Amino acid sequence: MEIQIHNPLDMHVHLRDADMMSVVAPLTSKYFSWALVMPNLVPPVMNTADAIWYRQRIESLTGNDNFTPFMTLFFHEWLTREILEKAKDHIMWIKLYPAWITTNSEGWVKSVLSEKAKEIFGIMEELGIVLHIHGETGDFVMDREANFMPNYLEIAKAFPNLTIIMEHITTKAAADTLDMFPNLYATITLQHLEITLDDVAGWALKPHLFCKPIAKRYEDRDALLELALSAHPKVSFGSDSAPHPQHTKECPGCAAGVFSAPISLQVLAQIFDRAGKLDNLQKFVSDNAVNIYKITPNTKTVILEKKDFVIPEKYWDVVPYRAGETIDWSIKEVK
Amino acid sequence: MEIQIHNPLDMHVHLRDADMMSVVAPLTSKYFSWALVMPNLVPPVMNTADAIWYRQRIESLTGNDNFTPFMTLFFHEWLTREILEKAKDHIMWIKLYPAWITTNSEGWVKSVLSEKAKEIFGIMEELGIVLHIHGETGDFVMDREANFMPNYLEIAKAFPNLTIIMEHITTKAAADTLDMFPNLYATITLQHLEITLDDVAGWALKPHLFCKPIAKRYEDRDALLELALSAHPKVSFGSDSAPHPQHTKECPGCAAGVFSAPISLQVLAQIFDRAGKLDNLQKFVSDNAVNIYKITPNTKTVILEKKDFVIPEKYWDVVPYRAGETIDWSIKEVK
Repeated sequence: MEIQIHNPLDMHVHLRDADMMSVVAPLTSKYFSWALVMPNLVPPVMNTADAIWYRQRIESLTGNDNFTPFMTLFFHEWLTREILEKAKDHIMWIKLYPAWITTNSEGWVKSVLSEKAKEIFGIMEELGIVLHIHGETGDFVMDREANFMPNYLEIAKAFPNLTIIMEHITTKAAADTLDMFPNLYATITLQHLEITLDDVAGWALKPHLFCKPIAKRYEDRDALLELALSAHPKVSFGSDSAPHPQHTKECPGCAAGVFSAPISLQVLAQIFDRAGKLDNLQKFVSDNAVNIYKITPNTKTVILEKKDFVIPEKYWDVVPYRAGETIDWSIKEVK
Repeated sequence: MEIQIHNPLDMHVHLRDADMMSVVAPLTSKYFSWALVMPNLVPPVMNTADAIWYRQRIESLTGNDNFTPFMTLFFHEWLTREILEKAKDHIMWIKLYPAWITTNSEGWVKSVLSEKAKEIFGIMEELGIVLHIHGETGDFVMDREANFMPNYLEIAKAFPNLTIIMEHITTKAAADTLDMFPNLYATITLQHLEITLDDVAGWALKPHLFCKPIAKRYEDRDALLELALSAHPKVSFGSDSAPHPQHTKECPGCAAGVFSAPISLQVLAQIFDRAGKLDNLQKFVSDNAVNIYKITPNTKTVILEKKDFVIPEKYWDVVPYRAGETIDWSIKEVK
C-alpha cells in the first residue's frame, strides 16, 4: 500500500545553528516542502536582518531540496511599528515565549497581557502578521498550559483580526479552547499524539521523550488525537522537532525537546493508518496550513509505502523519537 | 547550635548486594542505629534462610558500627503458615510490592485483595508480623497512589490487628487516609518533604530526583511536611534511599530511586530547623518508630551542628540527593 502526501509542511521546527543545523536542516528539507523555523537561537532572531541572515545559512544547506524555510521573529517588547513594517515583506510570523518557559526563552516576555505587548499585537493585527505563542504559565508543570488558556481568550477577543496560533498544544483544555474564537488556531506535534506522562516518567524515566510542554494525561492525548485524525481545519502539524546532543539529554539536567523531523511523516502515516484515517493525513500535514496561512508552498510529493522501517538509533549525535523501533511505514520516494 | 538525635532509625532502605552494598551499607550503618532493609534483590529475599544470609552479608560490612539491619521478606503468594512461623523469630516485617510497580517487583502480586493474599494477611495478623506495602496501582502515574487508597482501607478493616505501613507516601490522599483506621501507619522519605514534580520535570529533567512513587503536587508535599514537622505519631522516617550507578540514571531509560542515606539526617535537620520544629525531629526519626514497632534500638547518638556542609558530588558511582549543594547542618559526631 502507498500514499502520496503533497507539499508536507512542518509549521514548527527548530533547525538550530552551526554544526547542529548542518545535520538537522537537510533532514527537514528532504521531506518537507517548507517549514516554519523557530527563532530561539542564542541570541534570538530579533529583527529582519537577523532572520534573513539565518535563512541564508539554512538555505546554504538545503538549496537543492526544493524547500523553503520560513522565518519567525522572536517576540520582544522593543518591537516597533517600524521594525514590523520592515519585517512584513519577509516575515509573516512572530513567536512569543513567556519568560523562562523553555529553551532560550529566559528573561523575555514577563506578561503577555502588558500594555506594551498589546500595542504590538495591535500593529501585528493591522499588518497581517501571525502570532505564535508557546502558551504556558509558570505554574505547576501539569497545569501550565490549561492555566494559560485565559490569556489566549483575552488576546483573541481584543484582536479579532489577529491570527493566533496556540503552539504545540498538549491538553484537552487547549482542544476545548480552539473553537471559542474564530481567530484561534493550533499546531500539534507528533509525540503528543502518542505519549502521555506515563511514557516519560511512568516506568523508567525517558529523557528522549521529555519536551515542553510536557506530555499530559490520556484524556489530553486522546483529545489531540481526535483533532488530528479528524483533520480539524484549525489545526496543522508542527513537529516542534528540537534536536539536542545526546550528552545534554542523558545527564543530570536533561534539556527539553524531542527530535522527530526525519521520521515524522512515517510515524504519522502509521498513526493515521491504524486509526483508519489515512485520508485525513494530507489535510493535517499540509492543506489545513495552506488555508490558515494563505500560502502557496513549493511543489513536492512524498510517497510513503506500508513497509517496515527501523528508526535509526542516532542521527549524528542526536537520538530521535522512537530510536531503534520498527514502524509500519517508510518513505519510498520524494519527487 | 547543636542537636542530638538518639538512635536514628531508617524504616525503609535499599542496601543492595555485592559491590553496591559494600559502598552503601556502611553509609547507613554509620549514622543510623538500625534500619529496615528492603528485600527486592534479584532474586528477592523469599524466606528466612535468604534473609539471614543477606543479613550476614550486610553485617560483615557494618559489624563495627553498633548498627542492626532488620530484615524484611518479599511478599509472595506461596508464603505459608509454616514459612511465616519460622520467619517470626527473625523477621517482623514483610514487604508487598504490587506486580511491576517498581525496581525488581516484576511478576509478583497481581492483586493485593486476592483470596490467597488475604489468607496470608490473616496469618501475619495472628503472628504479629507487620505488613509494609508499596501502595500504587498501575494507573496514570500521578494517580497511582491515590487510587491505591481503597486497598489500604479494605485490608485495615478486614484485619484490625494487622499493623499496616503505607510506605513512602507522596500524596495528600495518603495523608488523609492515615487516620481512618488505627492500624494504618506511614513512612515518608526525605525527598518527598522537599520536591514536587516541578523539581523532577518542570524545568530541566532531573533523573537523580526520579523515584517511585514520583513526587507529586505542592499540596501533596505540604501535607507530608505537616505530618513530619508535627511528628504525627503514626509516621516515621523511611529514606527509601535507593542507590543506582550513575550510568543507569543518566541514560535513555533512567532507573527509579534517590540516594539519600548519608545526607538524610543533615537535610532533615535543615528542614525541621527552618520550620522552627527541631524539637520534633527526634520523634520523626526515632521515637515514633520505637512506639509503632515496639522495638528497642541500639544506643547511638548523632550530634548535628549548624555548620555548612557541601554534599559530595558522588559516593563511589552514585550521585546523591542534592549533590554538590551546600546545606546548613552537618554531622559533628556519632557516639
